[in-house]
Amino acid sequence: MAATCEDAHYPSPEAAEAAFYRAFESRDAAAMEALWLDDPGVACIHPLAAPLTGYQAVIAGWRGLFEGAGRFRVRAELLAALAQGDTVIRVVHEHLTLGNESASRPPILATNAYRKTPAGWRMVLHHASPLPADEDRVQAAAARRLH
Amino acid sequence: MAATCEDAHYPSPEAAEAAFYRAFESRDAAAMEALWLDDPGVACIHPLAAPLTGYQAVIAGWRGLFEGAGRFRVRAELLAALAQGDTVIRVVHEHLTLGNESASRPPILATNAYRKTPAGWRMVLHHASPLPADEDRVQAAAARRLH
Repeated sequence: MAATCEDAHYPSPEAAEAAFYRAFESRDAAAMEALWLDDPGVACIHPLAAPLTGYQAVIAGWRGLFEGAGRFRVRAELLAALAQGDTVIRVVHEHLTLGNESASRPPILATNAYRKTPAGWRMVLHHASPLPADEDRVQAAAARRLH
Repeated sequence: MAATCEDAHYPSPEAAEAAFYRAFESRDAAAMEALWLDDPGVACIHPLAAPLTGYQAVIAGWRGLFEGAGRFRVRAELLAALAQGDTVIRVVHEHLTLGNESASRPPILATNAYRKTPAGWRMVLHHASPLPADEDRVQAAAARRLH
């Protein structure tokens, strides 16, 4: 695992995103440390939680989260991607399956952003939020009511 | 208003963000049309709603939302900003005050992204999600439980 972290050099945003969900699923804080850009402007927002801004707070957040977490699997499904130069933004559904459950929970919606550096692609943003299961109904309701 | 839209040419991400919240508060769909980048990769996520992806869906979402909305004011408070080249990501608290209420509602958390184009800065992402009022408690709880 140490070798993986030290050698982390993700050649594409897709590789960085795969590494993110691998680190998330395996509750690997060292891999998160290697993946995130060490910058005061990075931000991580867990569902319904206050935003964590800056590298140190983001990493501390992952460490705290992993300490209390049981086993789970996660699969990311891409909804939209926007690339420009050295920044890529990807919107995904996260499908989590907890413990020994056979079906995944209602998806979490996440916006992830990555930046190209001389050491490969690094994560700069994760904003996750709940998404009710019945999307069509919710979408219609959202279009009728105030933001 | 028409002149404003036709002449929209925001010289900075800050100017584009100010235009976004001005368009939001004034329920001005034409201003939203002018502000957003016309690209299939743009995405807009209203709180607890399914993601809208692509320019047409994003604009239709704002039109629908504005049709049902009453008067309100909104103030954006910057929490984090990350700039690289032609893309800027900004995380903000949105403080909304509805109708004749004197106090703002618990803040909404939003990640906004902007891209520089030959015609100035354009919006490419808006991901808004609820944020409970007691942030410290929520932050601590989030760090203990699974994402």
